[in-house]
Amino acid sequence: MSDMNLIKRLAQPSDTHIVLLVMDGLGGLPGPNGQTELEAAHTPNLDRLAREGATGLSIPIAPGLTPGSGPAHLALFGYDPLVHEVGRGVLSALGVGLDLQPTDVAARGNFCTVDSSGFITDRRAGRISSEKGAELCKLLNQIEIEGAETFVRPVKEYRFVLVMRSLGLSPHVSDTDPQQVGLRPLPAMPNAPEAQRTADLVNQWIAKAKAKLADQHPANMVTLRGFAQDPNLPKFPDIFGLKAAAVAVYPMYRGVARLVGMEIIPVEHPISNEFETVAAHWEQYDFFFVHVKYTDSRGEDGDFEAKKAVIEKVDAALPILLDLQPDVLIVTGDHSTPSQLKSHSWHPVPTLLWAPATVRPDPVTTFGEAACSQGGMGHVQATDLMPLALAHARRLAKYGA
Amino acid sequence: MSDMNLIKRLAQPSDTHIVLLVMDGLGGLPGPNGQTELEAAHTPNLDRLAREGATGLSIPIAPGLTPGSGPAHLALFGYDPLVHEVGRGVLSALGVGLDLQPTDVAARGNFCTVDSSGFITDRRAGRISSEKGAELCKLLNQIEIEGAETFVRPVKEYRFVLVMRSLGLSPHVSDTDPQQVGLRPLPAMPNAPEAQRTADLVNQWIAKAKAKLADQHPANMVTLRGFAQDPNLPKFPDIFGLKAAAVAVYPMYRGVARLVGMEIIPVEHPISNEFETVAAHWEQYDFFFVHVKYTDSRGEDGDFEAKKAVIEKVDAALPILLDLQPDVLIVTGDHSTPSQLKSHSWHPVPTLLWAPATVRPDPVTTFGEAACSQGGMGHVQATDLMPLALAHARRLAKYGA
Repeated sequence: MSDMNLIKRLAQPSDTHIVLLVMDGLGGLPGPNGQTELEAAHTPNLDRLAREGATGLSIPIAPGLTPGSGPAHLALFGYDPLVHEVGRGVLSALGVGLDLQPTDVAARGNFCTVDSSGFITDRRAGRISSEKGAELCKLLNQIEIEGAETFVRPVKEYRFVLVMRSLGLSPHVSDTDPQQVGLRPLPAMPNAPEAQRTADLVNQWIAKAKAKLADQHPANMVTLRGFAQDPNLPKFPDIFGLKAAAVAVYPMYRGVARLVGMEIIPVEHPISNEFETVAAHWEQYDFFFVHVKYTDSRGEDGDFEAKKAVIEKVDAALPILLDLQPDVLIVTGDHSTPSQLKSHSWHPVPTLLWAPATVRPDPVTTFGEAACSQGGMGHVQATDLMPLALAHARRLAKYGA
Repeated sequence: MSDMNLIKRLAQPSDTHIVLLVMDGLGGLPGPNGQTELEAAHTPNLDRLAREGATGLSIPIAPGLTPGSGPAHLALFGYDPLVHEVGRGVLSALGVGLDLQPTDVAARGNFCTVDSSGFITDRRAGRISSEKGAELCKLLNQIEIEGAETFVRPVKEYRFVLVMRSLGLSPHVSDTDPQQVGLRPLPAMPNAPEAQRTADLVNQWIAKAKAKLADQHPANMVTLRGFAQDPNLPKFPDIFGLKAAAVAVYPMYRGVARLVGMEIIPVEHPISNEFETVAAHWEQYDFFFVHVKYTDSRGEDGDFEAKKAVIEKVDAALPILLDLQPDVLIVTGDHSTPSQLKSHSWHPVPTLLWAPATVRPDPVTTFGEAACSQGGMGHVQATDLMPLALAHARRLAKYGA
């Protein structure tokens, strides 16, 4: 995309409203009838928007690259995810809803199994259940060390997050996971001189964790990796000149939105409740990021019909958003999650831009992968969507005389 | 394309097979019936692949740029040819099948005509025949100088290659070709201090060449240009994690493949013999670069019908490749060579990606320039084809969490 500083320089105020509706993992592959989930879904509202608006395919990061949710959302927010990297520990902490402070250091943790000599025999502790993991996290959360607060939260099965809070911490600490069995967990080592104290605190914490878990075979030890801190990203409202709100049910997406400085509007239930939440706060913000999680979840489940059904629910609820008469509405996904692959993929994402006053419509009349591949927006980088939204909202001044 | 280091970081092993089939100079312009060579050709197999796969147009380097074979192939192999330049001398040496060692210096040579005062009267020695050129190269190949081995090989007509072999040589030597008649050939000059010895050796060689050619009017002198050394490119197998083989009849393409670290499988005859060679080595490699030369040759001849016939031969032989059930097959060209232009051109190249398990088909049902311009891959940089191939072969890990 264009340089963020340039966009910031050109951004100008207006009373227009922009909605960025992200259906997570929206893109798919043809299913049994040769249609994707989106193509097979009954979506009269989305089809109307496609007919009245411009369509295209969005490239999350670069051709062939399958993005994680963090980088994919950063790209949609206009940040080049290859430039603005968010560490794994921070993404994990956001994912479980931990509210990171700027000096916190977060790490991904695994429960593992060690033998009587301390050698790792299973890097995932026999893939203990999520219930067991949560129970053990409660134990670890009781650990107290001198000089820092610590927080432990379960992620899933054998995975957890450790957050360390104190002034003067550094994320430049090496992983303790040796990445193979038959070795002992490594001590945390400073990768920079200023990280010595942090490494010491981490090792202190690990020693106590080891003691607490001694009788908890197979989850009798931990490894840590991906130490990271809030990357202190340039802030979305500053760059784009938008009072911006995020409406998302899942902690991860609220977290990424908070990282870029959006305000988080609490919401309980997905889709129609999210759209109603936008409506309830319409006059307080210029920009709404609305996140629908379950397109991705059902794609990851490999459930074509269920993913299709989520899309139909979104379509049915759309009038709630349309009644607000947004000046610009973008409907896209952060990446594809074809139910055939049961995972994120690199395929570009069907995208529509609807902006009654300024859009140049194209011949596309339905919202789907094949249709969007013929769309007037062509193949567009995800990072270009925000400048486009801003332009259609008449919020970008002319460049040069 | 994405940063090569990023691709290297994300590349992961798999047992999948990728075939990159390059029909040199594939792209064309409409002929007598308004169809290009490819469109006019009867290609039931390629059309089926286009129908089942995704299509697009590949941009060799940048819009409007007509590439030489070297840069065009580097781009297909995933190397930005504007970053990774291969000198003319090296490309010429590869073109005649000389196996360059890392410290060799290679230069392009011209036979020319000088008058009795040494002034050039014809920069191409009256365009002597290739037979005459080869005969004179044998003479020059006998030259011995102190401190370096030298090799001379004919290219075509008045053109030849000089390779100098010794430790400590430098390619930073200036051209001796003054680029116009009425001037004397220039002495080779060092463009960097470390090139003094190389320049001295070159001038020593030129003096002996002049003596040998004294009675050979019109080819009674030589000029040299484009001194170059193996650019020591990052190696294809390291970056993409692929055991890679090249199957090509022409030395130039074997040479470029060898420069990037592919293994060269010997092959005698074009097309069906090349495909059979792939079949014979199928289990030994993950990746095959297969090069078809004569689409380009017949385009350069300006022979529409002959180029069309080469394409039909490729189509007819395709089942040999398809029977191998590659996981990913890309069919493209390195550039266009429209027979109307009798030369390489800048027009983007029809490209298809076939990958039964993961491809998102598009509405395109035939393989041709106009059809591919409507394809689901859109306009794609040639350098993006390798990351895409790797993704479809499930050989690229997710980027970020």
